[in-house]
Amino acid sequence: MTRPVAAIILAAGQGTRMQSKLHKVLHPIAGRPMLLHLIASLAELGPERQVVVVGAGREQVEAAVAGRGVAIAVQAQQLGTGHAVAQAHDALAGFVGDVLILYGDVPLVSAATMKALLDRLNRGDDPRAVVLGFRPDDPAAYGRIIADGQGIIEKMVEYKDASEAERAVTLCNSGLMAVRSTDLFVLLDQIGNDNAAGEYYLPDIVMLPGQKSAVVETDPLEVAGVNSRAELAGVEAAWQAQRRTAAMRDGVTLVAPETVFFSHDTVLARDVTVEPHVVFGLGVVVEEDVVIHAFSHLEGAVVRKGAEIGPYARLRPGADIGMKAKVGNFVEIKKATLGEGAKANHLSYIGDASVGAGANIGAGTITCNYDGFLKYRTEIGAGAFIGSNSALVAPVTIGDGAIVGAGSVVTRDVEADALALARGKQEALPGWAKRFRAKMAERKAGRS
Amino acid sequence: MTRPVAAIILAAGQGTRMQSKLHKVLHPIAGRPMLLHLIASLAELGPERQVVVVGAGREQVEAAVAGRGVAIAVQAQQLGTGHAVAQAHDALAGFVGDVLILYGDVPLVSAATMKALLDRLNRGDDPRAVVLGFRPDDPAAYGRIIADGQGIIEKMVEYKDASEAERAVTLCNSGLMAVRSTDLFVLLDQIGNDNAAGEYYLPDIVMLPGQKSAVVETDPLEVAGVNSRAELAGVEAAWQAQRRTAAMRDGVTLVAPETVFFSHDTVLARDVTVEPHVVFGLGVVVEEDVVIHAFSHLEGAVVRKGAEIGPYARLRPGADIGMKAKVGNFVEIKKATLGEGAKANHLSYIGDASVGAGANIGAGTITCNYDGFLKYRTEIGAGAFIGSNSALVAPVTIGDGAIVGAGSVVTRDVEADALALARGKQEALPGWAKRFRAKMAERKAGRS
Amino acid sequence: MTRPVAAIILAAGQGTRMQSKLHKVLHPIAGRPMLLHLIASLAELGPERQVVVVGAGREQVEAAVAGRGVAIAVQAQQLGTGHAVAQAHDALAGFVGDVLILYGDVPLVSAATMKALLDRLNRGDDPRAVVLGFRPDDPAAYGRIIADGQGIIEKMVEYKDASEAERAVTLCNSGLMAVRSTDLFVLLDQIGNDNAAGEYYLPDIVMLPGQKSAVVETDPLEVAGVNSRAELAGVEAAWQAQRRTAAMRDGVTLVAPETVFFSHDTVLARDVTVEPHVVFGLGVVVEEDVVIHAFSHLEGAVVRKGAEIGPYARLRPGADIGMKAKVGNFVEIKKATLGEGAKANHLSYIGDASVGAGANIGAGTITCNYDGFLKYRTEIGAGAFIGSNSALVAPVTIGDGAIVGAGSVVTRDVEADALALARGKQEALPGWAKRFRAKMAERKAGRS
Repeated sequence: MTRPVAAIILAAGQGTRMQSKLHKVLHPIAGRPMLLHLIASLAELGPERQVVVVGAGREQVEAAVAGRGVAIAVQAQQLGTGHAVAQAHDALAGFVGDVLILYGDVPLVSAATMKALLDRLNRGDDPRAVVLGFRPDDPAAYGRIIADGQGIIEKMVEYKDASEAERAVTLCNSGLMAVRSTDLFVLLDQIGNDNAAGEYYLPDIVMLPGQKSAVVETDPLEVAGVNSRAELAGVEAAWQAQRRTAAMRDGVTLVAPETVFFSHDTVLARDVTVEPHVVFGLGVVVEEDVVIHAFSHLEGAVVRKGAEIGPYARLRPGADIGMKAKVGNFVEIKKATLGEGAKANHLSYIGDASVGAGANIGAGTITCNYDGFLKYRTEIGAGAFIGSNSALVAPVTIGDGAIVGAGSVVTRDVEADALALARGKQEALPGWAKRFRAKMAERKAGRS
Repeated sequence: MTRPVAAIILAAGQGTRMQSKLHKVLHPIAGRPMLLHLIASLAELGPERQVVVVGAGREQVEAAVAGRGVAIAVQAQQLGTGHAVAQAHDALAGFVGDVLILYGDVPLVSAATMKALLDRLNRGDDPRAVVLGFRPDDPAAYGRIIADGQGIIEKMVEYKDASEAERAVTLCNSGLMAVRSTDLFVLLDQIGNDNAAGEYYLPDIVMLPGQKSAVVETDPLEVAGVNSRAELAGVEAAWQAQRRTAAMRDGVTLVAPETVFFSHDTVLARDVTVEPHVVFGLGVVVEEDVVIHAFSHLEGAVVRKGAEIGPYARLRPGADIGMKAKVGNFVEIKKATLGEGAKANHLSYIGDASVGAGANIGAGTITCNYDGFLKYRTEIGAGAFIGSNSALVAPVTIGDGAIVGAGSVVTRDVEADALALARGKQEALPGWAKRFRAKMAERKAGRS
Repeated sequence: MTRPVAAIILAAGQGTRMQSKLHKVLHPIAGRPMLLHLIASLAELGPERQVVVVGAGREQVEAAVAGRGVAIAVQAQQLGTGHAVAQAHDALAGFVGDVLILYGDVPLVSAATMKALLDRLNRGDDPRAVVLGFRPDDPAAYGRIIADGQGIIEKMVEYKDASEAERAVTLCNSGLMAVRSTDLFVLLDQIGNDNAAGEYYLPDIVMLPGQKSAVVETDPLEVAGVNSRAELAGVEAAWQAQRRTAAMRDGVTLVAPETVFFSHDTVLARDVTVEPHVVFGLGVVVEEDVVIHAFSHLEGAVVRKGAEIGPYARLRPGADIGMKAKVGNFVEIKKATLGEGAKANHLSYIGDASVGAGANIGAGTITCNYDGFLKYRTEIGAGAFIGSNSALVAPVTIGDGAIVGAGSVVTRDVEADALALARGKQEALPGWAKRFRAKMAERKAGRS
């Protein structure tokens, strides 16, 4: 039986280097705020309690986690990570189980890694704390962890205090850890702030006398921290690179992987082809055999088997593109369903609409769905043919198999199999253009 | 006199790691299936016979090479590369000459390299087989070739069987080779399958007793193999990098080379400028002094001297853009000719059309070329002026120097120098908007 | 008191490897010709004289620097860099002060570095020449500078003439230098052309007997030279990388920095977010809290606080996007002001226009601003609502709060709060579409 889990997420840093009004932990990676990456990973563990410790910007953080069962604790003064964790004391009152200590600006820790920390905590040799270690390409000035073959920590040492031999150790301290609730605050009470900064350091609980602690290792990317926009971009890039590799492994062709950007929840089936320069916003599902051409932008859309998207297609939330349907260049689809084999190939806006199977939407078609106050629906029947440059003024229904003549402004329903025309009568003024040019030329000459 | 040439292309691997319904050798690089890259290179040698040895997926491969004089042989059981080559026996019946053995998933071998293999085969020292070697950055677990200063092979050894000294050799075996037709099947008869996998290995013919074979070296990129979508992307990237370098060397400015993607047949003249984020599909020819702005997508198009394309221009097959003509943002051109100095600068669809020299196509112009069954042509004369947001319902002709008033739906021909208007009459309902807003506000209030 | 400054910019090389009709020094980096980068940096020093020494292509260079107080000197024969500098003699007649010698194809030298050369020239130890040195990652075949701890040059030696020990020195000669006007031509008179090429080499003035010269170091990027389009792309890439880093440091989020391209004068405020695939042309200013979505292209535009741009928005010169205004997909804005909170979200062309605060421009709206000869203005009042697919034929004014019905072609002014409709009447032909399809199917059958 697994023990109850709680998480303390530290988010009290000032984030000065971000140069931002937005709280650091709310800056997004792969379209999701960093803090919510952690909360999503935690969700896989079914935590009983989650506490975010904030300094400034409490309101922003509170709003971001609203409705997710997350408590907020405030660290009014910046007295170190140990002090920050201690602020979660009240929020954990009555909780008995294991506590994960995470960082809001270290967003990519996986549920599997969190679980590894907890599992290690509960193995027979009974460590009081389990620390998450990693081996970066360049260990630089990270604190080092000296551990034995069983991962029992012999020493944790700041880089500045480390000997040459200790600096040669490549296992570094990420700061993340797992501790039992019954130990955590007891241990925190024992650490001091007798250091240059006068701060209480969380890692000090590991090295308290008589303490046995263990280390678990993870991939450096999982513990990459974000302190600046450049690091934000760096973590984003690393995330994207992993996601692209995963997509290709699963049978997606990315012609130019480095030009394709995913969101955290993008779903792509096998034998999907993605051309260069494509952006996936949140909430996209793409089924098998779909081709997404260059310069397409998808968000909140479902693209069904064998459909063809783009180039320059913009699918917005609520777009549902049917099997073998086509959405072509400079076409925007929003809250609209395209039936099987339907086509909207050029320069169109289809919003708040349903388009029947096999219907053809001509170039330059606009569904006029908004009157400045409300949105209205356009229903286009199966096999209908909407002539180019038409405006369909919603609410309006075009029946199955109906044809709308090019350039029409359709304001009333069109019955099935009917032809609708709604355009001006053509007049001709012979020679007018010639006279106009002569006049303009004269005027120009007069000016110069 | 050069000897007759035949090629055996092995394509019997299952390609499981591609995770694809499409046969591995049909996945494209630079817009062309891998197998057809090889067949295009072979074409430069004028081969008498070409045989593709397939396992599963015969129909796909057959369809892809149809009409190219390529025979298909089937390897029903996967008994090794030696066995695969042997399946080409019947297809080569009666052929006397040199045989190249290639791999369908090693697509970038150049005609020059193929020729180098053949030339070496026919040099005076008379090797029985010539193997293509390469020196990769990381020789890893490739089989090694131990050769003397004349390229005569002393030993070919699998990595696992190699000594330390042999592993230190950086010359690796690509698997490609050239053998005389009179030797090939004789040698294959002599190799066994006495190995862990029970397979017949093609390289074993090189090391048969009393055999003299030679090695020829090539660039590692030429022998890069594709076993996964990631490797497909890797070979594509390497190909694109080479192509970009070649374009710049030939006098093309690529502002951001890494964001520009070519097809295998893209042709760009000197003093062409390509801005960031441009994709060239198949069949594009761009003449001197053309500027291609960002986010443009060209396919099957000719762009003549001094024309200006984009940003966000989409040229589709049959687009022929005249000298100093301009195609601007969100404009699609398909099967259409733009005369010298003609302009289509904004938000237009010009399909199945000819546009005369100096004509101006206003923003939002659509040629309505399709009635759901057939396509019709629009002819626009020289110096014509098409007012914005017009729909030209084909078949229709706008005469030289004619003007179409903005917002017109033109269904009948317009004679030269005439003005055509085809739009509704403007009516005004004073105060209507104000009353409407009041009503909507009231309704909204009622709802809440 | 600082001494007067003059600059000689050498631009006489033939630039053969550029393969271009355009003079090498006029090829742009970050949207500005290389030569003008130098002149812009020089401007910070307030130079009294500036001379560009050209060989071929004088007219192009002259046109590019017209109005900037730059003299042109011609080197008719290519007799070396020393000879080239000597051609500036007449243009500097009467000038007394310090002379910077720069290269037109070494565009990124900063004003700070130029100033460092001048400062060193005027320090107490009184060098006759100050050379700009750099330490490249790969010193390759650059000439080496052997200097003491004070930067006093002991020897400057061509790579080919250097000893092993000298080649081990990593300080290389960029060729740039500062010399007093009173020394420069005297020194040049003393150098000879007794070398394989028979050329007069500028660096030789440094090593004249009895001469004391000094070296100042700079970043290799500042002295990167451009001799080919590939090097042009390389310097552009290095410039862009630096610019992106600076933007992030200043509080701009770049989701995918490597896909965003800046011009030399792009200005971005704090808390601007730029999504992947965005291009900034010349003259863009973006205020705080603006979001620029993917695939946007901005040029000559001001985007005010909190506005939202794109995806696929094209802002052209003269676009002024108001606070919290929105410009959406496939929308082009040119010489037009959008008031606070105004929206143009889809498929529109707004040119030569003003759009009042809170106005809503429907999808597919086109301002028809051009009659083939002149441009006319469209004025749209605050709170106006332009129905989709409308054409506004300028000159025309839509009053505050007015509504234009969808699909209208507006040719006359619309008064405030009025509704304007200008579209054809809708007719219906029941069953027509069905009969049409039957006829077409029959025709098709007859054909086959």
